[in-house]
Amino acid sequence: MCGLDHHDDSLLEAMLENNLLFDSGVDGLYGRSGIFEDVIERFELLVRRLGAPDKATRIHFPPGMGRKTLEKSGYLKSFPHLAGGVHSFEGSDRDHAKLLGMLEAGEDWSDLQTPTDVFLTPAACYPLYPTVAQQGAVPDDGRLFELSSYCFRHEPSKDPARMQMFRMREFVRIGTPEQVCDFRESWLERGKTMIEGLGLPCHLDLASDPFFGRGGKMMAISQREQALKFELLIPVNSEETPTACLSFNYHQDHFGQTWGLQFEDGRTCHSACIGFGLERVALALFRHHGPDVEKWPAATRKLLWED
Amino acid sequence: MCGLDHHDDSLLEAMLENNLLFDSGVDGLYGRSGIFEDVIERFELLVRRLGAPDKATRIHFPPGMGRKTLEKSGYLKSFPHLAGGVHSFEGSDRDHAKLLGMLEAGEDWSDLQTPTDVFLTPAACYPLYPTVAQQGAVPDDGRLFELSSYCFRHEPSKDPARMQMFRMREFVRIGTPEQVCDFRESWLERGKTMIEGLGLPCHLDLASDPFFGRGGKMMAISQREQALKFELLIPVNSEETPTACLSFNYHQDHFGQTWGLQFEDGRTCHSACIGFGLERVALALFRHHGPDVEKWPAATRKLLWED
Repeated sequence: MCGLDHHDDSLLEAMLENNLLFDSGVDGLYGRSGIFEDVIERFELLVRRLGAPDKATRIHFPPGMGRKTLEKSGYLKSFPHLAGGVHSFEGSDRDHAKLLGMLEAGEDWSDLQTPTDVFLTPAACYPLYPTVAQQGAVPDDGRLFELSSYCFRHEPSKDPARMQMFRMREFVRIGTPEQVCDFRESWLERGKTMIEGLGLPCHLDLASDPFFGRGGKMMAISQREQALKFELLIPVNSEETPTACLSFNYHQDHFGQTWGLQFEDGRTCHSACIGFGLERVALALFRHHGPDVEKWPAATRKLLWED
Repeated sequence: MCGLDHHDDSLLEAMLENNLLFDSGVDGLYGRSGIFEDVIERFELLVRRLGAPDKATRIHFPPGMGRKTLEKSGYLKSFPHLAGGVHSFEGSDRDHAKLLGMLEAGEDWSDLQTPTDVFLTPAACYPLYPTVAQQGAVPDDGRLFELSSYCFRHEPSKDPARMQMFRMREFVRIGTPEQVCDFRESWLERGKTMIEGLGLPCHLDLASDPFFGRGGKMMAISQREQALKFELLIPVNSEETPTACLSFNYHQDHFGQTWGLQFEDGRTCHSACIGFGLERVALALFRHHGPDVEKWPAATRKLLWED
């Protein structure tokens, strides 16, 4: 292997040793070096260039969203274990003294915090749908958005490709089933060509989401049967279990129904999204091309830094 | 006023009406338009250009940090009311059924979540100090870092310049008292010149942090007496109460002591940080120059888009 010198279980160690990531004491939370950030920025510019002909509307959301919005989205039905709710201290001077006393004594003081209206965003597009719904009927040719945001998923892991906080870039197409599936189809091709152009081994595959619990198994089978989710997989932390770096999701009319997204004539809109896992792609590049970006293949460097 | 047509209490409404911000249903959480994002990106590039001669080391942290790191930092002593802890559901299938039942019935299900190891980052530099401490002794000429991250503070407000989730860019200087105060001094000048160059009214003033409770009043007085904090203020939401858009903070050896930051010879390091409130600067620009960036003053446009 020409890339980072590591065994399958130590990509994280190699990234830390090369000062590309920094340990925070919590699995899945890392500082990123300036070089790591530069790679992410350059990859984002590449995605924007490839998507430019589609003239997407850019919109950005912070890493938190409204509790009610997340509750209404259906996320807690499918992925309750991944969601993060924000709690804050709203007590008095006396409560504060108690908090500091418990902290000093090494006790768990979290009961002194109460739930706020904020949940962490689990995927870049969740806050989008209610925002689009505020803007009235969807035109006949549908809509297309370009998003990028930090996301949170509570799944602490030593696999650096499974961070608790990571950035996801997305294109979201809203329209008829044909419009949104055509868009997804176009990115199945564009995405694979782009990743191959970066010199990374990859393959497309049918996939399913990590639905929670016993009922989740049935949801995953149904999702596969209907071919609602594809992933572009690259070996990152492991050769045997490659990592989904891009995902291509057809939501049918789930979000259209949930948020009342309709055309002028009252038909409910369908939606699809293309997700780019930014840290995952950066990790894949370091994994396969090595820790020194100056030594990456000429074609990869050209695509990221020169075009 | 040549800028956004609004009364002092309705900058938020003006930003929403002009589709520069989007309502999320929660005060202090907003979507941002592509134009708003472009202004932020261009301002960040301007700050990087102005800071380039200093050759700062770039490092980036996600919007969450380790609970223990935040606890040790002293933040909960001074600002317990602003911190956000992340709670997640770690229950069984049966607990999940209960969660969904409570959700359906409109009941508060948050007790089914338990505290995680993650707290939201309250200011961009908090995760930096323990990371620097891992890297051994600080060289004689100190260190300089460049950071940018999303931050969370639990203070819901209709003032769009007081968001719950916002981006902060920072330079952090670590070194002797003289080194860090000289650096702060240099940015008091550079920062004011930069903001004036953007055509914004501003003035520098001594300031204090919003320390919690009765004891906090004394801390604020002491902070002012020692001139530890300056702010560059711009009228944003209100003429009478201008908004701190840049801040210049001398921490003395607080973080040096807390995290064991030392020179080779064992002396404890001091630190100072310069913070740029990115959403606040963008709001100030829209407030004073109007909603249409094409019509902003030529000098402002040149500084942001052409230089």
